[in-house]
Amino acid sequence: MKHKKLKIGILGFGTVGQSLYEVLQKSPSTSAVIEKVVARNPNKKRNIEIKNLSFDTREITESTEIDTVVELINDDIEAFKILKTAFENGKNVVSGNKKMIAENLQKIIDLQNQTGQSILYDASACGSIPVIRNLEEYYDNDLLQNITGILNGSSNYILTQMYRHNKSYNEALTEAQEKGFAEHDPVFDVDGFDAMYKLIILTLHGFGTIAKPKDIFFTGISGISESDIRFAREKGLKIKLIAHACKVPGNKVALFVMPAFVEQKNYLYNVDDEFNGVIIEGDAYDKQLMFGKGAGGHPTGSAVLSDISALSHQYKYEYKKLHLPKPPGVSDDILLKLYFRYEKPETIDILPLQTIEEQYVGPAFHYTVGTVKLADLLINSENLRKFVSFMALRNISKESIITHYANKKHYRQQLIPVD
Amino acid sequence: MKHKKLKIGILGFGTVGQSLYEVLQKSPSTSAVIEKVVARNPNKKRNIEIKNLSFDTREITESTEIDTVVELINDDIEAFKILKTAFENGKNVVSGNKKMIAENLQKIIDLQNQTGQSILYDASACGSIPVIRNLEEYYDNDLLQNITGILNGSSNYILTQMYRHNKSYNEALTEAQEKGFAEHDPVFDVDGFDAMYKLIILTLHGFGTIAKPKDIFFTGISGISESDIRFAREKGLKIKLIAHACKVPGNKVALFVMPAFVEQKNYLYNVDDEFNGVIIEGDAYDKQLMFGKGAGGHPTGSAVLSDISALSHQYKYEYKKLHLPKPPGVSDDILLKLYFRYEKPETIDILPLQTIEEQYVGPAFHYTVGTVKLADLLINSENLRKFVSFMALRNISKESIITHYANKKHYRQQLIPVD
Repeated sequence: MKHKKLKIGILGFGTVGQSLYEVLQKSPSTSAVIEKVVARNPNKKRNIEIKNLSFDTREITESTEIDTVVELINDDIEAFKILKTAFENGKNVVSGNKKMIAENLQKIIDLQNQTGQSILYDASACGSIPVIRNLEEYYDNDLLQNITGILNGSSNYILTQMYRHNKSYNEALTEAQEKGFAEHDPVFDVDGFDAMYKLIILTLHGFGTIAKPKDIFFTGISGISESDIRFAREKGLKIKLIAHACKVPGNKVALFVMPAFVEQKNYLYNVDDEFNGVIIEGDAYDKQLMFGKGAGGHPTGSAVLSDISALSHQYKYEYKKLHLPKPPGVSDDILLKLYFRYEKPETIDILPLQTIEEQYVGPAFHYTVGTVKLADLLINSENLRKFVSFMALRNISKESIITHYANKKHYRQQLIPVD
Repeated sequence: MKHKKLKIGILGFGTVGQSLYEVLQKSPSTSAVIEKVVARNPNKKRNIEIKNLSFDTREITESTEIDTVVELINDDIEAFKILKTAFENGKNVVSGNKKMIAENLQKIIDLQNQTGQSILYDASACGSIPVIRNLEEYYDNDLLQNITGILNGSSNYILTQMYRHNKSYNEALTEAQEKGFAEHDPVFDVDGFDAMYKLIILTLHGFGTIAKPKDIFFTGISGISESDIRFAREKGLKIKLIAHACKVPGNKVALFVMPAFVEQKNYLYNVDDEFNGVIIEGDAYDKQLMFGKGAGGHPTGSAVLSDISALSHQYKYEYKKLHLPKPPGVSDDILLKLYFRYEKPETIDILPLQTIEEQYVGPAFHYTVGTVKLADLLINSENLRKFVSFMALRNISKESIITHYANKKHYRQQLIPVD
């Protein structure tokens, strides 16, 4: 067994960087030595004494000692530059930067091919749960059908608090921020960006499909109110923010991120608090759930450590599905049954509905349940953001995700008024 | 990416063999071609037309065409011979035979080193759930603390039926047999052998420890009665057959298989029916659950397919933990809090109890809850089998698994009679 003693440089010394530093002390057999830590702010007070602390990125990317760059900064543009420089200087990279990775998939693959260096990024989706590695290595055949997951711990924590303790969205958000589960600026988490980027990464390793952020419809939970929670509770459902990658006819995958009403029998129903859970569904093995802590310093630090360890064993992603004779393309040609809540009754007119199944007009709010084409959601996403307070998949199940529908033409039914 | 087109021979054409045959048709990109299928019984009527069907093992093990032997027979002695011959003839092997593997770990590793061939056996534990591969590849550092799992689908199905529908053990067993979840001779499943062999395999890949079957205390569910289920239900618990590998002080692992009372908050509480679930617990990432169909033709067939696919990418187990500076030894020096139910009150005298916490003497049965050393269970296993109707860990939690205890001497308390 080849096993290389890595000399690592850690770039970025926030929560994850510090946790990695601690976790590495507990894992002497990993055979990685920290040569240098580069933090951003020289004036920040730190709890732990760091040997070899520096504030100049080049001391890592241009070091002749360091062979492995562990990139844990927030800025995705800067992170990509670091990746490129590191590769060019003959270093491998470990990263948890989902945005940088998802935005640059093809470039990252090309750079690896050109330089012979490699990047591992299992920490970028679902923290400590080894989802990327499993999709890449284990579900390596044509049986894989769907990936469905709660990929964002902050949103899940907020939704759990609202459901369980009748807290308002703002109360729950504040609490998530206090506990360190949500950032000071929570948009990335609660509006679905984070889950969308993770979905892109999972889709590459699951299906061999390189999707672009602009082609994915995503919406988050920031508009949720107590009335949505009440609607869910009355029907024995919970609301979860869920990312979907579904195989659809014609060798395609449909991708979207949105809240969904989840029945008790669904595996994701019990994935609460800051946990993540991913269902991997295949032709022969039915459904499998991988479940664990998706966020937080230590879980993510341990995922980074697993990548470091894998690098020391010369492991690299081979992007196996990308080498399939014909990886699936991205499709937006599916029908979804959605719940829309809005304030002004006339909003109904801008909803790109194909059918209306249910409608409520009340003093405080209005909602409509109906079917919509995913393509129409994408086209109308700006309007939806503006006029719809909250939207969610009516049911996380095949009933609400219709991949075969007979009449592909516009078949919106007449609006049925409700008292 | 190197990708080899494998020429496989399937030995054994029972449920799993047939499912693999079917699953392979659905997975054209796997690049494995079935050159030969060898079944045991020439006179058996078969539902599907098999090309290249034969009844002579040597047509596979001695073939000059076949490079990969897929061994799916029941007999562990015969299976080991096949493995050896296959290796000597330059073939790799895929197997799901947990008994053969667990009984011969060291020999199998030596044979791989000697011949340069390899065996993959992810199908041998938890069917389609990629537990072995994850323990080998992902949790590859010193953080791993415990592996706890429902590893036997038959027992879990029976327990679920008893709990949910108030069925008797015999009714539930018959049903499991009718549904194909339990063998005609169920001893291997319901008395803990199956889970014990799987635990040995998981322990090797998780901790680098080679344990021997004789060193593991295991007991199953065949003695369970409605009164045990009632005891559990009254306390809001379920009973599950659970295999444990726990890191204990002094760089050791304690291994045992037995039923346990499981609280609702435990991840395994909701692992019902024929499903398997494994909790992987580590220092930084806390607990993770992997959950899915652990048995049955198609799930196991898809696990075999994953191994075939991995072989085609030149993947082999490197037994990484075995190369740790010092893999943990096996310990039986822990205290367990157990529930014992028995028929004759004097059985209490043969129980190797350290303390007695609770006792019930009634017209129909008697039980005692108390602490016992794992070492004493091993020594007394024959008597326990003879005189104890049913035993279970009182609680699947740290309270009932005591790895640090002050007084290592015999400290059995005086028996407290209960009215």
